[in-house]
Amino acid sequence: MAFLDYFRSKQKNTANTAKERLQIIVAHERSTRNQPDYLPALQKDLIEVISKYVDIDKDQVCVSLDKEGECSVLELNITFPEEQAVS
Amino acid sequence: MAFLDYFRSKQKNTANTAKERLQIIVAHERSTRNQPDYLPALQKDLIEVISKYVDIDKDQVCVSLDKEGECSVLELNITFPEEQAVS
Repeated sequence: MAFLDYFRSKQKNTANTAKERLQIIVAHERSTRNQPDYLPALQKDLIEVISKYVDIDKDQVCVSLDKEGECSVLELNITFPEEQAVS
Repeated sequence: MAFLDYFRSKQKNTANTAKERLQIIVAHERSTRNQPDYLPALQKDLIEVISKYVDIDKDQVCVSLDKEGECSVLELNITFPEEQAVS
Protein backbone atom coordinates (compact mmCIF):
# COMPACT_ATOMS: atom_id res chain seq x y z
CA MET A 1 0.00 0.00 0.00
CA ALA A 2 1.65 3.15 -1.26
CA PHE A 3 0.18 5.48 1.33
CA LEU A 4 1.24 3.29 4.25
CA ASP A 5 4.80 3.29 2.94
CA TYR A 6 4.69 7.07 2.70
CA PHE A 7 3.43 7.37 6.27
CA ARG A 8 5.93 4.90 7.68
CA SER A 9 8.87 6.49 5.90
CA LYS A 10 8.06 9.76 7.65
CA GLN A 11 7.92 8.28 11.11
CA LYS A 12 11.19 6.37 10.95
CA ASN A 13 13.20 9.55 11.33
CA THR A 14 11.84 10.17 14.80
CA ALA A 15 11.22 6.60 15.92
CA ASN A 16 13.49 7.00 18.93
CA THR A 17 11.46 9.83 20.44
CA ALA A 18 8.49 7.46 20.97
CA LYS A 19 5.98 10.09 19.97
CA GLU A 20 2.46 9.23 19.00
CA ARG A 21 1.02 10.59 15.79
CA LEU A 22 -2.26 10.60 13.96
CA GLN A 23 -2.71 11.49 10.32
CA ILE A 24 -6.07 11.97 8.62
CA ILE A 25 -6.38 12.49 4.90
CA VAL A 26 -9.66 13.22 3.14
CA ALA A 27 -9.52 13.31 -0.65
CA HIS A 28 -12.61 14.23 -2.62
CA GLU A 29 -12.74 13.95 -6.36
CA ARG A 30 -15.72 15.76 -7.77
CA SER A 31 -16.59 15.40 -11.39
CA THR A 32 -19.13 17.56 -13.15
CA ARG A 33 -20.94 18.81 -10.09
CA ASN A 34 -20.37 22.30 -8.85
CA GLN A 35 -20.82 21.73 -5.14
CA PRO A 36 -19.38 23.99 -2.47
CA ASP A 37 -16.16 22.67 -0.98
CA TYR A 38 -17.07 21.32 2.46
CA LEU A 39 -13.58 20.17 3.46
CA PRO A 40 -12.68 23.36 5.39
CA ALA A 41 -15.81 22.92 7.53
CA LEU A 42 -15.23 19.20 7.82
CA GLN A 43 -11.87 19.62 9.53
CA LYS A 44 -13.49 20.95 12.74
CA ASP A 45 -15.96 18.08 12.80
CA LEU A 46 -13.17 15.56 12.29
CA ILE A 47 -11.16 16.95 15.21
CA GLU A 48 -14.29 16.83 17.36
CA VAL A 49 -14.95 13.19 16.46
CA ILE A 50 -11.35 12.10 17.08
CA SER A 51 -11.40 13.93 20.43
CA LYS A 52 -13.98 11.42 21.64
CA TYR A 53 -11.30 8.74 21.50
CA VAL A 54 -7.99 10.49 22.17
CA ASP A 55 -7.05 13.75 23.87
CA ILE A 56 -6.01 16.25 21.25
CA ASP A 57 -4.07 19.40 21.98
CA LYS A 58 -5.35 21.91 19.39
CA ASP A 59 -1.86 23.43 19.19
CA GLN A 60 -0.56 20.10 17.97
CA VAL A 61 -2.89 19.91 14.99
CA CYS A 62 -1.37 20.83 11.64
CA VAL A 63 -3.91 21.30 8.83
CA SER A 64 -3.31 21.61 5.13
CA LEU A 65 -5.80 21.92 2.32
CA ASP A 66 -4.79 21.23 -1.28
CA LYS A 67 -6.73 21.51 -4.48
CA GLU A 68 -5.57 20.12 -7.77
CA GLY A 69 -8.07 20.22 -10.57
CA GLU A 70 -11.14 18.36 -9.39
CA CYS A 71 -9.40 16.73 -6.45
CA SER A 72 -9.55 18.41 -3.03
CA VAL A 73 -7.37 17.01 -0.26
CA LEU A 74 -7.62 17.82 3.42
CA GLU A 75 -4.71 16.66 5.57
CA LEU A 76 -4.63 16.73 9.37
CA ASN A 77 -1.45 15.84 11.23
CA ILE A 78 -1.71 15.50 14.98
CA THR A 79 1.19 14.93 17.34
CA PHE A 80 0.45 13.83 20.89
CA PRO A 81 2.55 15.22 23.71
CA GLU A 82 4.76 12.67 25.43
CA GLU A 83 3.63 13.65 28.92
CA GLN A 84 0.14 12.54 27.98
CA ALA A 85 1.26 8.92 27.92
CA VAL A 86 -0.37 6.54 30.38
CA SER A 87 2.19 4.60 32.40
CA MET B 1 2.58 14.92 -2.60
CA ALA B 2 2.90 11.14 -2.89
CA PHE B 3 -0.57 10.36 -1.62
CA LEU B 4 -2.24 12.75 -4.02
CA ASP B 5 -0.44 11.10 -6.94
CA TYR B 6 -1.63 7.73 -5.70
CA PHE B 7 -5.21 8.93 -5.48
CA ARG B 8 -5.16 10.67 -8.84
CA SER B 9 -3.63 7.70 -10.65
CA LYS B 10 -6.59 5.59 -9.54
CA GLN B 11 -9.20 7.96 -10.82
CA LYS B 12 -7.76 8.42 -14.30
CA ASN B 13 -8.97 5.01 -15.41
CA THR B 14 -12.60 5.95 -14.96
CA ALA B 15 -12.42 9.65 -15.70
CA ASN B 16 -14.93 9.36 -18.51
CA THR B 17 -17.67 7.97 -16.28
CA ALA B 18 -17.74 11.24 -14.32
CA LYS B 19 -18.16 9.50 -10.98
CA GLU B 20 -17.56 11.25 -7.72
CA ARG B 21 -15.38 9.66 -5.09
CA LEU B 22 -14.31 10.31 -1.55
CA GLN B 23 -11.39 8.67 0.18
CA ILE B 24 -10.63 8.98 3.89
CA ILE B 25 -7.47 7.60 5.43
CA VAL B 26 -6.75 7.65 9.15
CA ALA B 27 -3.29 6.46 10.16
CA HIS B 28 -2.39 6.21 13.82
CA GLU B 29 1.11 5.47 14.95
CA ARG B 30 1.19 4.53 18.57
CA SER B 31 4.46 4.14 20.34
CA THR B 32 4.83 2.66 23.80
CA ARG B 33 1.21 3.01 24.89
CA ASN B 34 -1.02 0.01 24.96
CA GLN B 35 -4.32 1.69 24.14
CA PRO B 36 -7.31 -0.08 22.67
CA ASP B 37 -7.63 0.40 18.93
CA TYR B 38 -10.42 2.91 18.37
CA LEU B 39 -10.26 2.97 14.57
CA PRO B 40 -13.04 0.35 14.07
CA ALA B 41 -15.40 2.46 16.19
CA LEU B 42 -14.21 5.65 14.52
CA GLN B 43 -15.31 4.55 11.07
CA LYS B 44 -19.01 4.84 11.97
CA ASP B 45 -18.50 8.30 13.40
CA LEU B 46 -16.61 9.39 10.30
CA ILE B 47 -19.39 8.25 7.98
CA GLU B 48 -21.89 10.08 10.17
CA VAL B 49 -19.89 13.31 10.03
CA ILE B 50 -19.38 13.15 6.27
CA SER B 51 -23.12 12.47 5.83
CA LYS B 52 -23.78 15.97 7.12
CA TYR B 53 -22.20 17.35 3.96
CA VAL B 54 -22.84 14.78 1.24
CA ASP B 55 -25.40 12.02 0.76
CA ILE B 56 -23.72 8.68 1.30
CA ASP B 57 -25.15 5.37 0.21
CA LYS B 58 -23.93 2.88 2.85
CA ASP B 59 -23.65 0.21 0.14
CA GLN B 60 -21.09 2.37 -1.63
CA VAL B 61 -18.73 2.56 1.34
CA CYS B 62 -15.73 0.25 1.21
CA VAL B 63 -13.81 -0.03 4.48
CA SER B 64 -10.41 -1.57 5.10
CA LEU B 65 -8.43 -1.72 8.30
CA ASP B 66 -4.71 -2.48 8.23
CA LYS B 67 -2.24 -2.93 11.04
CA GLU B 68 1.48 -3.05 10.54
CA GLY B 69 3.53 -3.03 13.70
CA GLU B 70 2.58 0.10 15.64
CA CYS B 71 0.81 1.72 12.71
CA SER B 72 -2.96 1.25 12.31
CA VAL B 73 -4.57 2.49 9.12
CA LEU B 74 -8.28 2.89 8.50
CA GLU B 75 -9.29 3.48 4.88
CA LEU B 76 -12.76 4.44 3.69
CA ASN B 77 -13.57 4.59 -0.01
CA ILE B 78 -16.91 6.04 -0.96
CA THR B 79 -18.35 6.17 -4.48
CA PHE B 80 -21.31 8.39 -5.17
CA PRO B 81 -24.00 7.17 -7.52
CA GLU B 82 -24.24 9.09 -10.78
CA GLU B 83 -27.97 9.64 -10.50
CA GLN B 84 -27.30 11.63 -7.33
CA ALA B 85 -25.76 14.41 -9.40
CA VAL B 86 -27.46 17.79 -9.30
CA SER B 87 -28.22 19.14 -12.77
